[in-house]
Amino acid sequence: MTVLADETPVLAVDVGGTTIKAELVAGDRILASRRATTPRGPAAIDAIGDIGDALLRGASGVPRAGVILPGVVDRRRGVGVFSANVGWQDVPAGACLSERWRIPVVVDHDVTVAGWAEWRLGAGRGVDDLAVVAVGTGVSAALVSGGRLLRGGLGQAGELGHVVVRPAGPLCGCGARGCVEAVASATAIAQAYEAGSGRSVAGAADVFALAEDDVVARSVVTEATAALADGLAGLVQLVAPARIVLGGGLADAGEVWLDPLRAALGTRCRVVAAPPLVAARFGARAGVVGAALLARQGPIDMGGAA
Amino acid sequence: MTVLADETPVLAVDVGGTTIKAELVAGDRILASRRATTPRGPAAIDAIGDIGDALLRGASGVPRAGVILPGVVDRRRGVGVFSANVGWQDVPAGACLSERWRIPVVVDHDVTVAGWAEWRLGAGRGVDDLAVVAVGTGVSAALVSGGRLLRGGLGQAGELGHVVVRPAGPLCGCGARGCVEAVASATAIAQAYEAGSGRSVAGAADVFALAEDDVVARSVVTEATAALADGLAGLVQLVAPARIVLGGGLADAGEVWLDPLRAALGTRCRVVAAPPLVAARFGARAGVVGAALLARQGPIDMGGAA
Repeated sequence: MTVLADETPVLAVDVGGTTIKAELVAGDRILASRRATTPRGPAAIDAIGDIGDALLRGASGVPRAGVILPGVVDRRRGVGVFSANVGWQDVPAGACLSERWRIPVVVDHDVTVAGWAEWRLGAGRGVDDLAVVAVGTGVSAALVSGGRLLRGGLGQAGELGHVVVRPAGPLCGCGARGCVEAVASATAIAQAYEAGSGRSVAGAADVFALAEDDVVARSVVTEATAALADGLAGLVQLVAPARIVLGGGLADAGEVWLDPLRAALGTRCRVVAAPPLVAARFGARAGVVGAALLARQGPIDMGGAA
Repeated sequence: MTVLADETPVLAVDVGGTTIKAELVAGDRILASRRATTPRGPAAIDAIGDIGDALLRGASGVPRAGVILPGVVDRRRGVGVFSANVGWQDVPAGACLSERWRIPVVVDHDVTVAGWAEWRLGAGRGVDDLAVVAVGTGVSAALVSGGRLLRGGLGQAGELGHVVVRPAGPLCGCGARGCVEAVASATAIAQAYEAGSGRSVAGAADVFALAEDDVVARSVVTEATAALADGLAGLVQLVAPARIVLGGGLADAGEVWLDPLRAALGTRCRVVAAPPLVAARFGARAGVVGAALLARQGPIDMGGAA
């Protein structure tokens, strides 16, 4: 697959468990964008098709699309193998969408591609050993080592959210207790605060805002920071990144979140030192930016771009 | 650096914190071998030199040597950057030994090279995503992902021994509490048994042998297995290996050790499944086998062999 010039308009689609985000992008310019709620099950493919159609209708000369999917993805065959959130199994997304849009469609895994975007164009530029960690509804990581994205053999590499750090801690969606995700995700922070205070919040950002005056909020934030730092410290000892980029919904909290996390990570890393910890550049748009890069460059590490 | 034929005799040296092991090897045949106690500090270089001289004296046509060092190693410059066990810092091992032996010397990191040997020639053959874990005096891992050895950016990748699994657990040599190494290494098992029973043992193998009848031994072994499984489960979620090879001194315990570890790992891996767990092929000789391969093939991943 040839590499397209940066300025070529491409269709970029990030399929999330709740929202489909799509953009027509040329270089850094967003020519048009659309969002839709993700329907459950294989019907999601029709919704992705519709949103792409709508964007392509208003454009001409769009030679390729990049589509990123959650869960387990077979990028070689362009298949969504499994996603609990979307509720699908073995969906030939690449083939279906390519037939519908009449352009080649490059498919890959959402977290990996979002991390790739931060590595190539964002806060991870310039290093060959990197962890891009997204903390939002869940917690996951894209890992780069020696200038290559780690993919994993059995299963997908980078499942930081399911490293257990509190064996007697809260139950995780995966069935284990005390996963990083069950304590340190935005969802877990909001839930722990609501359970502890009896009051409801719109999200984790509210809990951070309350932490200065509210004892329950402070304790929830402290515990979430400690749990994430425990997971990151293990990651650091195992893959020794030269930099960690923190993104996902919780990154909107900014330095209120990052600063204590940096301190907690520093005290925990002894044999392999804690690397610099920086905020992501693209935030929630990292997936779409990566999908556009995927459309332009073709499949990652498959005889094409690194 | 050209790749030498398998049958070419090479000098292979594994410098450990307590013992220097050296062999003259041609293909699978050990032509001669020597051991010596490792002196502390830079004097270790003289001892390595002596042992190599003695082996080279009895041979002719040895074109190259492979030397592997513990701790932090700068393989590009052939320098032992730091080793707490040997007690040295910034020792130009490659240059010194090359001048003394009058042959090129390829230098690399001991755990990485021992893992490389298991990957290329041993129990890890045939997979592109592998963890080779050594459990002995310490606990460490060599990681292979996508057909490449992970090296790490800041520091050395694979420090599984310093992933914390028991935050309130025993103090580790690194200064943290409850590292995998502080609970699950052969050293930790022997110490925990001696502390719990008031009786002394020759090593961890004795504790395994006692575990059927002795309550203290059983509890120490159970806890060590659980702690190692916790660390491995984290490793599996992060790098998703297709196979785990278990080696180091404790591997001599065999299935008595591996079987419960397999079961414990299986119950802990949920999002990324537990891969098959097999015993290493080369045991304590993996380092020397890898050093011989290093001598034959030249530097790993430096424009040469993978």
